[in-house]
Amino acid sequence: MPELRKDPVTGRWVIVTTDRAMRPADFIREHVVPAGGRFCPLCPGHEEKTAPEVLAYRPGGSLPNSTGWSLRVVPAKFPVLRVEGDLNRLGDGIYDKMNGVGAHEVVIETPDHMLTLGDLSEKQVEDVFWASRDRIVDLRRDIRLRSIFVFKGHGEAAGATLEHSHSQIIALPVVPKSAMEELEGAKRYLDYRERCIYCDIVRQETEGGLRVFLETEHYVAFCPYASRFAFETWIVPRRHRSHFETVEIPEVKNLGWTLRTVMRKIDKVLERPAYNLMVHSAPVQEGAMAHYHWHIEIVPKLTRVAGFEWGTGFYVNPTPPEEAARFLREAGLV
Amino acid sequence: MPELRKDPVTGRWVIVTTDRAMRPADFIREHVVPAGGRFCPLCPGHEEKTAPEVLAYRPGGSLPNSTGWSLRVVPAKFPVLRVEGDLNRLGDGIYDKMNGVGAHEVVIETPDHMLTLGDLSEKQVEDVFWASRDRIVDLRRDIRLRSIFVFKGHGEAAGATLEHSHSQIIALPVVPKSAMEELEGAKRYLDYRERCIYCDIVRQETEGGLRVFLETEHYVAFCPYASRFAFETWIVPRRHRSHFETVEIPEVKNLGWTLRTVMRKIDKVLERPAYNLMVHSAPVQEGAMAHYHWHIEIVPKLTRVAGFEWGTGFYVNPTPPEEAARFLREAGLV
Repeated sequence: MPELRKDPVTGRWVIVTTDRAMRPADFIREHVVPAGGRFCPLCPGHEEKTAPEVLAYRPGGSLPNSTGWSLRVVPAKFPVLRVEGDLNRLGDGIYDKMNGVGAHEVVIETPDHMLTLGDLSEKQVEDVFWASRDRIVDLRRDIRLRSIFVFKGHGEAAGATLEHSHSQIIALPVVPKSAMEELEGAKRYLDYRERCIYCDIVRQETEGGLRVFLETEHYVAFCPYASRFAFETWIVPRRHRSHFETVEIPEVKNLGWTLRTVMRKIDKVLERPAYNLMVHSAPVQEGAMAHYHWHIEIVPKLTRVAGFEWGTGFYVNPTPPEEAARFLREAGLV
Repeated sequence: MPELRKDPVTGRWVIVTTDRAMRPADFIREHVVPAGGRFCPLCPGHEEKTAPEVLAYRPGGSLPNSTGWSLRVVPAKFPVLRVEGDLNRLGDGIYDKMNGVGAHEVVIETPDHMLTLGDLSEKQVEDVFWASRDRIVDLRRDIRLRSIFVFKGHGEAAGATLEHSHSQIIALPVVPKSAMEELEGAKRYLDYRERCIYCDIVRQETEGGLRVFLETEHYVAFCPYASRFAFETWIVPRRHRSHFETVEIPEVKNLGWTLRTVMRKIDKVLERPAYNLMVHSAPVQEGAMAHYHWHIEIVPKLTRVAGFEWGTGFYVNPTPPEEAARFLREAGLV
């Protein structure tokens, strides 16, 4: 009998298949391994092919926009939003619009074209989060920018057009719908229970243990109860903070190791799948919130979304999260 | 300058690219044309390969589950939900679940393996809607089933696993999130303006004409103002009805011609793309609603969803709907 499960934050229902649960070997998978060989605008020596960098880590102290960097942040070549201009909110009969003011940047995570997130050192993964934090702190000074998201698409199936390992930062003048729903769902829970729902999720998951596959000093990694997708993974910090950008040194250090380990487990079990990763965090112009709790969501791209999912927001997950977590827990790493 | 547009029903924001708008020839497209040649369980003569039919149109009066049909409805071979059993709603700490009670059926739209929706006759397309209506009327007698959706995925990119033209019907014991959001958004509009938002959309679109590409006696077809996807198309009935299953004979007849023409225009401009189609209709156990208005949404699968869209509900549409509508309006049909 399939099971209907409700996401406690958003209220979203998911069908979890239990009869014919799909195991890692059942998915037709794209193995995403950099092939190299083509011209890459993100590689060292091609710095002039990107817009001038807005941030770079240069261990040897080399000049901006030259080689010698370990990480670079550059404006996107084809930005979906631009910093220039006014918002100019307008109505058009029953419709509303505004100019696409915002920012869109690319974090080049490593100079080495052939490495993916799980191949990077702990320090390199840590640096991706330092760079993201620094960019958020800089971008939020523009008070028109209300939400800033750090996300990553790896592989064509995840929308990536460049194979060189990179993340993206997008700053928006609005709070998008899904983010608003998470905030509102978490607020309703706080109003009713007077507790943070994510803190409660961490407590229930670590006590039950069925869906947890990695616990570190500052983080818990698990496949959520109402996973929309097979092998969906959340990394939730134990310490309550609404805003990612308020993390402190030990938390960023530990995140490097935690995310690297999670990615290595996913790469091992699912044979280097395409995936999307997103940092969920509270709107940047608002103060600390008792109800929201930043976290990371990772979705391996194993199956295509079927017909009715985009229309109803109702997902069918072919692998129970308890099964997915068992595979990830048991994946030994060299 | 890109434009941010807000969907008036759901409040969803979309970035519409205006600078480098993508035209039909810019999309890397999968042309979905039935290849045939493989064994097909939906073809005439293979009736025993599906579950016994729940409905069939047999112009010559042949026996159930034999050849001679023009349309068949059968339970899905791998249903995501089952009619048997009790809902058995349960809590598990902070989580909620219930058994996956529901129904999942397949409407085989034509006996001819090689035809797609745009190739069918008006009468055949009309019959798909009669069959869907009849199934909804039958299924809703089970009062546990609260939402029933008719949808179609055409092509692998749209999640279809069989190439023989078919739609699906899914009956759920809950109202899914996106459907609830449409209902709530439309209700807020009615409360504020005392009018149906979809009736207002039809009025504004037909007066403006920029995004409309087909007007028939009972329907208006247009690319919506805040289209999430390039060439997204809505077919909205002029007459206000909350429930698709309450349509009357002239409306179903005219829908056959309207949808067939829309699909032929889409097939011509986008060279037979993969697409998803969904009938949006009010929850089946509720009476007629002043605020909701059934309609059809069609989304050609032209680009992959990029990284941040699934996490934020914030879409980037590379083709302004005014441009898309112009191409569809000008597409002459033989």
